[in-house]
Amino acid sequence: MHVPDHVVTAIEIVAILVGAFSGFIEARRKRMDLVGVFTVAFITAFGGGTLRDILLDKRPLFWVIHQEYAILIFVLALVASPAIRTLRQIVSERLIVIADAVGLGLFSVAGVSSALDAHMPLFIASMMGVITGIFGGVLRDIVCNEVPMVFRDGKPYAICAFIGNWIFLSMGMLHVSGDFALWSSALFITTTRLLAWKFDLRMGR
Amino acid sequence: MHVPDHVVTAIEIVAILVGAFSGFIEARRKRMDLVGVFTVAFITAFGGGTLRDILLDKRPLFWVIHQEYAILIFVLALVASPAIRTLRQIVSERLIVIADAVGLGLFSVAGVSSALDAHMPLFIASMMGVITGIFGGVLRDIVCNEVPMVFRDGKPYAICAFIGNWIFLSMGMLHVSGDFALWSSALFITTTRLLAWKFDLRMGR
Amino acid sequence: MHVPDHVVTAIEIVAILVGAFSGFIEARRKRMDLVGVFTVAFITAFGGGTLRDILLDKRPLFWVIHQEYAILIFVLALVASPAIRTLRQIVSERLIVIADAVGLGLFSVAGVSSALDAHMPLFIASMMGVITGIFGGVLRDIVCNEVPMVFRDGKPYAICAFIGNWIFLSMGMLHVSGDFALWSSALFITTTRLLAWKFDLRMGR
Repeated sequence: MHVPDHVVTAIEIVAILVGAFSGFIEARRKRMDLVGVFTVAFITAFGGGTLRDILLDKRPLFWVIHQEYAILIFVLALVASPAIRTLRQIVSERLIVIADAVGLGLFSVAGVSSALDAHMPLFIASMMGVITGIFGGVLRDIVCNEVPMVFRDGKPYAICAFIGNWIFLSMGMLHVSGDFALWSSALFITTTRLLAWKFDLRMGR
Repeated sequence: MHVPDHVVTAIEIVAILVGAFSGFIEARRKRMDLVGVFTVAFITAFGGGTLRDILLDKRPLFWVIHQEYAILIFVLALVASPAIRTLRQIVSERLIVIADAVGLGLFSVAGVSSALDAHMPLFIASMMGVITGIFGGVLRDIVCNEVPMVFRDGKPYAICAFIGNWIFLSMGMLHVSGDFALWSSALFITTTRLLAWKFDLRMGR
Repeated sequence: MHVPDHVVTAIEIVAILVGAFSGFIEARRKRMDLVGVFTVAFITAFGGGTLRDILLDKRPLFWVIHQEYAILIFVLALVASPAIRTLRQIVSERLIVIADAVGLGLFSVAGVSSALDAHMPLFIASMMGVITGIFGGVLRDIVCNEVPMVFRDGKPYAICAFIGNWIFLSMGMLHVSGDFALWSSALFITTTRLLAWKFDLRMGR
């Protein structure tokens, strides 16, 4: 199954911006300074993909090839840092959750695709997708000295990504077109995540 | 000094299961959900070896070659997560300490062996063994937002691994058979760790 | 721009000792035992450079080539651990800040130089320099279960490194001699950091 490079790139850009924004919010909540805000935003945006690429031993890293995205987050941190109080008043929690769900779907499926390119077995590829989708946030929470939210709130989040990744893998085995498989799987993840949030679903413990 | 591949593999399987169990316990203590339980168990089981392989730049990673172990931990997390309260009542602290000591011995010596295969100098190889033996637990504690237990309780743990690794290295220099060197060094580590626990020994600070 | 290998090496040795000392202090403040003291000192001293080399996929790591530095920190941990209370009374905060500022300057510029050798684009190279300079301390604080100091105290620290790295890069573009560029940029970072500390400057949040 092959997904065109420009599609994967477009996906990652959107997801990076969403990740960076979530990093801004958390860093400010922890009263971090400009350096913390940039670093946490950077880690949230690129952390999942970077961990995946280190595990896959894939280089150069995405943000090394595209230094423009690192520069973009740097400029955003400079601009957003003083304005974040205003931004948080304008940007509702609803918008953050929606953007984050879009990021989750896109990141996860792109991660599976990348793991398949590196000839990973299926279960590992599905895990690499989840890592790509959630470990930006996990690393953000570790740096912010919190137990990672995604491990403790009992809400379907990583689970949505995991199931969506298997839909993507199944479509691949059924020779569905790569583009269709990618977008529909990402849409599935985003939709189920948003429904779970809307109806406040919890997994049993 | 060469240790047969199937011996190293057998060692790692036992140690992985022990690590996963310790991860289950910690994750539940922190009231994590299913995703947290699986991830923390996975990190505890594979974290030390994965960090060692990243430092050595060795790929593919153990759990990529053997995706069956990742699947095993996944299934165990599904089963163990609801049953963990019962499990903790059945499984005594004594059993956990014993299993963990066995894991420490096996993981550490396997780590030294792997580092020697990668032509590391002796002191670094001994460190790589300790990293393999203890960093699963260190990463578990970092993710669980604790100061790593192994760094603060003053009990001989990493020290046992360190000395045992040097016994292993010394036997190698004396051309002792690889199998004998491996098992006796692992046994030394496990035994000294258990004796230190039994008699509640502390290192000076 | 080429900086002679022995210059880079000399720089890294000084910076490693400074990092190790800072690790000793933090580990003892957290009441860690000998294993914690050694590990935290090691992570503080080598963490930034190791993370950089993992991101750059550069091997063997510095402390693998030079196992004598790892052994040095090991011996220092054995000696320093009982003596640290005395050491902290003898060594003033002023001295620690000065030594740390020297380490920041040297580590950062060495990191940029190393990233350029690996053909990184300029902005990424400047970031790699900052990572080399500050991530030893960041990893130390994460292991010690603290929000990294460098992200939250609002004092110019990483900023000094970032600007100094760009001075180094600019000198490279202007074909200034590598040695002069390296030492003067490191001196700039150390001096501005010390001035910021002396006059208690803060960045806006």
